[in-house]
Amino acid sequence: MGELRRDPVRNRWVVIDPERPDREAALKVEAQPPPPLSGPCPLCPGNEAMTPPEIIAFGESSRQRNQTDWSVRVTPDLQPLCRIEGDFDRRPEGPFDVMNALGAHEIVIESPQHLLTWAEFPEQQLERVLRTYRMRSLDLRLDGRFRSLIVVKNNADAAGILRHPHSHVLALPFIPYGIEEELRGCREFYARKERCAFCDIILHERVSRVRRVVETDFFVVLAPFASRFPFETWLLPLRHASDFGKIGEKELVDLASLVKRTMQMVGKVLGNPSCTIVLHSTPFDEPHTHDYHWHLEIIPKTAPVAAFGWGARLFVNPIPPEEAAALMAQQM
Amino acid sequence: MGELRRDPVRNRWVVIDPERPDREAALKVEAQPPPPLSGPCPLCPGNEAMTPPEIIAFGESSRQRNQTDWSVRVTPDLQPLCRIEGDFDRRPEGPFDVMNALGAHEIVIESPQHLLTWAEFPEQQLERVLRTYRMRSLDLRLDGRFRSLIVVKNNADAAGILRHPHSHVLALPFIPYGIEEELRGCREFYARKERCAFCDIILHERVSRVRRVVETDFFVVLAPFASRFPFETWLLPLRHASDFGKIGEKELVDLASLVKRTMQMVGKVLGNPSCTIVLHSTPFDEPHTHDYHWHLEIIPKTAPVAAFGWGARLFVNPIPPEEAAALMAQQM
Repeated sequence: MGELRRDPVRNRWVVIDPERPDREAALKVEAQPPPPLSGPCPLCPGNEAMTPPEIIAFGESSRQRNQTDWSVRVTPDLQPLCRIEGDFDRRPEGPFDVMNALGAHEIVIESPQHLLTWAEFPEQQLERVLRTYRMRSLDLRLDGRFRSLIVVKNNADAAGILRHPHSHVLALPFIPYGIEEELRGCREFYARKERCAFCDIILHERVSRVRRVVETDFFVVLAPFASRFPFETWLLPLRHASDFGKIGEKELVDLASLVKRTMQMVGKVLGNPSCTIVLHSTPFDEPHTHDYHWHLEIIPKTAPVAAFGWGARLFVNPIPPEEAAALMAQQM
Repeated sequence: MGELRRDPVRNRWVVIDPERPDREAALKVEAQPPPPLSGPCPLCPGNEAMTPPEIIAFGESSRQRNQTDWSVRVTPDLQPLCRIEGDFDRRPEGPFDVMNALGAHEIVIESPQHLLTWAEFPEQQLERVLRTYRMRSLDLRLDGRFRSLIVVKNNADAAGILRHPHSHVLALPFIPYGIEEELRGCREFYARKERCAFCDIILHERVSRVRRVVETDFFVVLAPFASRFPFETWLLPLRHASDFGKIGEKELVDLASLVKRTMQMVGKVLGNPSCTIVLHSTPFDEPHTHDYHWHLEIIPKTAPVAAFGWGARLFVNPIPPEEAAALMAQQM
């Protein structure tokens, strides 16, 4: 019989049932071939004029702006979700609230190479990418209009138009709903326990080890107890920290190496699936210093989500996280 | 520029932006051909022995149980998410909560005909289906172990193994997370306003009419102000009611006709997409009599959800609900 497991942060019950019929699909996913490009890749070196002017780039000190010879480059997104200029024009519409979609939507072009997954990245290149996230987080929070920042990376996403490795940095005037759920849960947990919910999880998983994939001096990788999705994987700092922007250099170097190893493990177990990787960090305007814990969530795209999830969000996961963690750890 | 719109029930911001590049995909979706059956359909008449014994069926009074000649038939699901027998065995696991996945997972076999969408159903047949939902809701609430009931219907779902028209009735020992979010929002709204949030929405939409698709004596169909998905459509009773199980016979007949018309409109606008239809109704054990409003949510599967949604739940919808409502209303 399946189990119902409750996520202690969000108070969310998830069905974990290895006897579900979609189990086999969730255990292996073939990589999609990259879709054909309909023209030159706008993110490749030499095509810098195809993107909006760069915000920042890493390269030789002699390099000129918007020229080639960069290692990492940040530009506004070609099709931004939200725009940086203008007024919010906050207004009611009947009983509803509306504002203009202001925000920063930047892309981090992570490498000059057109096809490269994080599992294949040189560690130093991943370090540069993480440093770029930190830098953008520290810079964008200076703009008082923005309340939160998320980083979204689609690793080898077949649905994406662009296969050139890149990620999205979004600074938003609101807190995305999925982060707000977490923040609320963490605040409630802290009010009851005066401890960080994620710290409790980390403590337990390091002792029990059944869902721990790997740990380093600074981080732990684990399959969460109430995983919504097959092979859902969290990467958390061992020591309590709410703000990714304040990560130290030693931790960052360790993180780059661990992210690469984690993506290699996911790739070996599942055959290089598309993954969505999201950086969860505390909002700028109400820092949850004590009760929130920044982390990376990695969700491989395996089987289609069971239909019960839509709207009602009844999550059903055919791969117990203990099994996912063991399969991943075997690949080390 | 896109707009940020806040759902007043869930306090959830959604990006509505008709200039998104995935707009065209979201405007038309070809119907998927039904996948080939690998054997006889277990839901077709004559194959009653292929399902678990029926719970209830509509048919002639002379009909014998588990024989053919039914018009609607309810059986336990062939691959249930949760089981009806056994103990919860509620237990801690370290800092976590676990229980056995007990619950009722039934399927309503909605017609003897193998391929038929709700848009094609005779109205009387849809009435029988809705009466069946009501009956199961009233029956299953007598089992004190279950806290909530949802009905999930995948209309012409290409991902499903079974194309024979059927829906899932789930009575659960917990409240699905998507419903709990709504209940919490409604409770907070009521605490502030002493009015039902959905009643406020209905009042406004009936006056402004820009997102109202159609209304009858008892119901209204509208495209919600902060639609998460293209052509997201809600069907709500005009008069405040929290519990679908208490729907009257006149309302039920009206609802059947309106559901059919709504599915016809969706089908004409989008070319018969797969749809997920979920019945949201108040939980059994803590009836939200004053602050919750039962309704049906219809979500057509058009373009893939923008990748920003995963985990962070940053919803981006390229079809403004005003436009969706107008396109649907034109098809009447």
